[in-house]
Amino acid sequence: MKYFKGFASDNNAGVHPEILEAITKANAGHAIGYGDDPYTAKAVQQFKSLLGDNIDVYFVFNGTAANVLGLKAVTNSYHSIICSEQAHLNVDECGAPEKFTDCKVLTVPTPDGKLTIEGIKRHLHGFDFEHHAQPRIISITQSTEMGTVYSPSEIREIADLAHQNRMLLHMDGARISNAAAFLNLSPKEITADVGVDVLSYGGTKNGMMFGEAVIFFNRELSREFKYIRKQGMQLGSKMRFISAQFSALLENDLWLENALHSNKMARKLYEKIKDMPEIRVTQPVQSNAVFAIVPPEFIPRIRDKFFFYMWDEENSEVRWMTAFDTTEEDIDNFVKVIRETVSAAK
Amino acid sequence: MKYFKGFASDNNAGVHPEILEAITKANAGHAIGYGDDPYTAKAVQQFKSLLGDNIDVYFVFNGTAANVLGLKAVTNSYHSIICSEQAHLNVDECGAPEKFTDCKVLTVPTPDGKLTIEGIKRHLHGFDFEHHAQPRIISITQSTEMGTVYSPSEIREIADLAHQNRMLLHMDGARISNAAAFLNLSPKEITADVGVDVLSYGGTKNGMMFGEAVIFFNRELSREFKYIRKQGMQLGSKMRFISAQFSALLENDLWLENALHSNKMARKLYEKIKDMPEIRVTQPVQSNAVFAIVPPEFIPRIRDKFFFYMWDEENSEVRWMTAFDTTEEDIDNFVKVIRETVSAAK
Amino acid sequence: MKYFKGFASDNNAGVHPEILEAITKANAGHAIGYGDDPYTAKAVQQFKSLLGDNIDVYFVFNGTAANVLGLKAVTNSYHSIICSEQAHLNVDECGAPEKFTDCKVLTVPTPDGKLTIEGIKRHLHGFDFEHHAQPRIISITQSTEMGTVYSPSEIREIADLAHQNRMLLHMDGARISNAAAFLNLSPKEITADVGVDVLSYGGTKNGMMFGEAVIFFNRELSREFKYIRKQGMQLGSKMRFISAQFSALLENDLWLENALHSNKMARKLYEKIKDMPEIRVTQPVQSNAVFAIVPPEFIPRIRDKFFFYMWDEENSEVRWMTAFDTTEEDIDNFVKVIRETVSAAK
Amino acid sequence: MKYFKGFASDNNAGVHPEILEAITKANAGHAIGYGDDPYTAKAVQQFKSLLGDNIDVYFVFNGTAANVLGLKAVTNSYHSIICSEQAHLNVDECGAPEKFTDCKVLTVPTPDGKLTIEGIKRHLHGFDFEHHAQPRIISITQSTEMGTVYSPSEIREIADLAHQNRMLLHMDGARISNAAAFLNLSPKEITADVGVDVLSYGGTKNGMMFGEAVIFFNRELSREFKYIRKQGMQLGSKMRFISAQFSALLENDLWLENALHSNKMARKLYEKIKDMPEIRVTQPVQSNAVFAIVPPEFIPRIRDKFFFYMWDEENSEVRWMTAFDTTEEDIDNFVKVIRETVSAAK
Repeated sequence: MKYFKGFASDNNAGVHPEILEAITKANAGHAIGYGDDPYTAKAVQQFKSLLGDNIDVYFVFNGTAANVLGLKAVTNSYHSIICSEQAHLNVDECGAPEKFTDCKVLTVPTPDGKLTIEGIKRHLHGFDFEHHAQPRIISITQSTEMGTVYSPSEIREIADLAHQNRMLLHMDGARISNAAAFLNLSPKEITADVGVDVLSYGGTKNGMMFGEAVIFFNRELSREFKYIRKQGMQLGSKMRFISAQFSALLENDLWLENALHSNKMARKLYEKIKDMPEIRVTQPVQSNAVFAIVPPEFIPRIRDKFFFYMWDEENSEVRWMTAFDTTEEDIDNFVKVIRETVSAAK
Repeated sequence: MKYFKGFASDNNAGVHPEILEAITKANAGHAIGYGDDPYTAKAVQQFKSLLGDNIDVYFVFNGTAANVLGLKAVTNSYHSIICSEQAHLNVDECGAPEKFTDCKVLTVPTPDGKLTIEGIKRHLHGFDFEHHAQPRIISITQSTEMGTVYSPSEIREIADLAHQNRMLLHMDGARISNAAAFLNLSPKEITADVGVDVLSYGGTKNGMMFGEAVIFFNRELSREFKYIRKQGMQLGSKMRFISAQFSALLENDLWLENALHSNKMARKLYEKIKDMPEIRVTQPVQSNAVFAIVPPEFIPRIRDKFFFYMWDEENSEVRWMTAFDTTEEDIDNFVKVIRETVSAAK
Repeated sequence: MKYFKGFASDNNAGVHPEILEAITKANAGHAIGYGDDPYTAKAVQQFKSLLGDNIDVYFVFNGTAANVLGLKAVTNSYHSIICSEQAHLNVDECGAPEKFTDCKVLTVPTPDGKLTIEGIKRHLHGFDFEHHAQPRIISITQSTEMGTVYSPSEIREIADLAHQNRMLLHMDGARISNAAAFLNLSPKEITADVGVDVLSYGGTKNGMMFGEAVIFFNRELSREFKYIRKQGMQLGSKMRFISAQFSALLENDLWLENALHSNKMARKLYEKIKDMPEIRVTQPVQSNAVFAIVPPEFIPRIRDKFFFYMWDEENSEVRWMTAFDTTEEDIDNFVKVIRETVSAAK
Repeated sequence: MKYFKGFASDNNAGVHPEILEAITKANAGHAIGYGDDPYTAKAVQQFKSLLGDNIDVYFVFNGTAANVLGLKAVTNSYHSIICSEQAHLNVDECGAPEKFTDCKVLTVPTPDGKLTIEGIKRHLHGFDFEHHAQPRIISITQSTEMGTVYSPSEIREIADLAHQNRMLLHMDGARISNAAAFLNLSPKEITADVGVDVLSYGGTKNGMMFGEAVIFFNRELSREFKYIRKQGMQLGSKMRFISAQFSALLENDLWLENALHSNKMARKLYEKIKDMPEIRVTQPVQSNAVFAIVPPEFIPRIRDKFFFYMWDEENSEVRWMTAFDTTEEDIDNFVKVIRETVSAAK
């Protein structure tokens, strides 16, 4: 198999060597299945150190499940979930939230991926009216699908709006590490401290092989979550191999190191292309993604060398994502290909 | 962490070294996410070599999902699923089949875990009657939850019964390798060749870290399965790490080697205890499980040294499972503990 | 259309004249839709007089919905529902309970249709164990599908068992009036007073055109039921026409008069055939049903004159049901046909 | 109870006398339950005369169910349903479509309630892409929630777009009679003849007590609908009382007479207020609804005499609906109240 690297997604990267090593070390003897093992106990403890003692932590296989099961835990079928029109849970899950929670998903157009108070408020009506699915939870993505980052005060404002309406705040943190790295804040400062109730803490996109955590900041909400995880087909039997990965990720701030690095690589890419007249970067570069409008005739030629995805076919907008394993050299080579493609066209 | 081994379940074992090595090797560069990668293409091809070219193969994270999604693919909400009262999908999935398929699960009492024609027929009525959930699929487990094994002709007979009633046959093959090893037959001879329509092919319990395969022997049935897997929260982003494991498992018949070994260890255990008057083995030992009635006063003392589960509290029946990594020495030590416990009581 | 009468079901009868008159009277001017009307307020008040002030009352279209929505109100998807193998909700609803509640339905064999403490206890295990659907509610039918009736103390015993296990008791009262009539007790004495938590109070089978009531004896349980009814597609817009029917049914004890009459007709039928050597009555006649084994050769001839259903094809067991409009003459004529058929065969 | 009339909704009206008479006539003797009766056979035949022989007809209790069950019949859980943001099924069903079909509901903003080709096309992407819920059906409302009416060619254009994409066209015809009356076309000419696949044919809002019909114009689509209706809790036991109502509605074009009348009353109301400077009618008056912006200070005073609903609180927009039983005098009186209220304020 040909060695290959690209800018398609941070989930195209492999596993960070320290995490792979942790897996290998965990592969000794037997461990009780389904999470009743010392690796899991340790990883949960590390999450408590990171996010506060008064939390509940559950590991699942992937990000779809982290979001959907976290939402299921706090909703009933007649509730609605408010999120960005671009939210992963709205556009990229093949209807998994509707299928598993039975809730209605209400969307708000968000040019930069970030929900606004005004946009949310459009959906805050019909309370107590039985004809109307009851608004129950707001879901934000941090960092967003557009690579942008909510500030702590923006999150707090949304959390307050939710709580004033007896609703909850969910955060899809598939890339929470990138957001924390950008903000130079701890994950706690952008979740527990600003009113987040349920969090999907991403592992896979930050160097793990698989595994995400569902974190509840209010333990009342998670009282029966173990059943939801099991019924949701997400209780891993050899759980230690998720837990050991999280342990490695949280140990010595590897999560932060990885995130800082991928953010830096995106920044570097941005710096090198931002002045090219042929290319227009469309979003602030705040995490590990660069969105740009590129003339359509250039795209196939660039993609030939480095794979990536179209974001918006109609507007010829592409998404370039960096990962923990993107190197300075990768960026240099990629920019070189872009420049050559553009020059060749002149 | 203290090194530990037991007879609780084959999922308490770790990962076979060759499989772990395959994971490590797959961790090079980037790979397109969600299965569009060469590792997955290879593993699918290996499955076709094993089970026949005319199949569809989909990887999922765990056994719960393999069964539930396979059943969802071929049912509508008003169907019913017929299985053993002891079937994993009936008793150990926290209602996941009902939740995700919406179907009614109909059970048949089965002392040895094996569905009988007579037992199934009790549920074959009400066809075309709108008040009655329509029988749609029969699910058998191979090897069964009781460690017993269906012969090919037994499977064929059930498949014929299903097909005569325009129904399908599903096989929960979480331990299909142990069954094939016991029967000295290929997996194909106990699935495709005898009328199985949908198969969960187990990886985790036979030495993988995680990962199961859903196999369709009739590609009409799987036409839209990719959506079901995604909506079912079971599409892994870094799919190559499931695929590489399956490749290693199927390569050089590692699946068979592992299964033969764990079967042999269960057999050895059985041979050593079968003549102890204090212990009564309750099921034929045909795969990697030994079921036995043990006087209740002995159980805590034995469990102190080697962990295992009670099967039937009321009858003081225990389940001892062996795994690919159970050694002859483990068996000797375990039997020694049993003997000492029994002697001490005299 | 040929005038026709039979013993197939009490739902083959039409509408009691007083109820039809109440409908006609309610058809004056406009009324706010969806239950915010004086007819509904009055009917709810009548239910409170009948069953106690501290109840919540919701009207739905039919019995399937009354049971399924009542169960949905007090369960989550990972719960299980325990009922008789013969319970309507298990065998006659095409899987509606599983579809709408997502729960597992666990059954107990019951020769006379009545759940026993011992039978229920078989399913009371696995509490707190995430692999196991959590037992949440026991459902009994009063009078049962076999025409038998639970005594108040039998209900109390089941309620206590439920509550001791932090479970609830549901009663399918599609024919609760017949049970109350048989026991010479008020509906309250066999529900609120003996621990029932949720009740389906039947209207249709006792002379209404359509309409059933879901009654909650603990208002905590029904706090959000209005959403469940609406989402469950059971909120009638012209609600007054259900409410007016219930008002007529509860006024002047019409419910009791109808039930006493249909019970009496079943009793009369029983008395007239019980000594026929060719016919064996198989269940105690306690409400408005007679179950009997009749030689198969007689059945088509009798059915030619008076339609009824086979109950158990294999054993040639039939079910004969009386209704509020069955007359003494109907019974006489039916018995005459039976006798003639039997005589002709000699 | 005080006699009361208003402009809140056509479902606040009662039952048309001829329909009530038909119910009374149907109340003779017994009839087989669940639709196997001569009343139902007759009503189905009448629908075939109206809409074409090659259809399937199923009666359900209410409009929520007609829409939801019709959609369920032709979708799988991973599909999406495209409708107007204002569609009843989107805003007024408490999430019933999501709950029962599991599908994602995608909405299009529609100032006049009518879907446009351009608006629909925004959602026609992601076909064959497993991350995306698959667009499967477009649902239009005729007449719309805004009282407007699709022309046959507008419907045909949407149907063609659907079919070109291997999708289907659903019509919520809760008020199809009003649309047909406005267009001076038969119901067939605006459904079967222009590509509608599934239709909810409204009865309740046009003078029935309860009851709607789900009509399939392609019988392949309804092959298993009887199970869906039963599992959907919408199979009425005393079905004859729905069927007899539909018979009366279809007999002698009572459906048309009622619709023409209520349309005419709305027209009359519109004509009388359209020149009042204080009131701005916001939608073309094409069926039995008038939408108008009324200064907020007038509203409570008018509502005191004639009840109606706010449509858009923020813009002080109200909805006035007429019904089959609205009289010319009602309109005169209502307009008088409006005029007096406005004058008093001067």
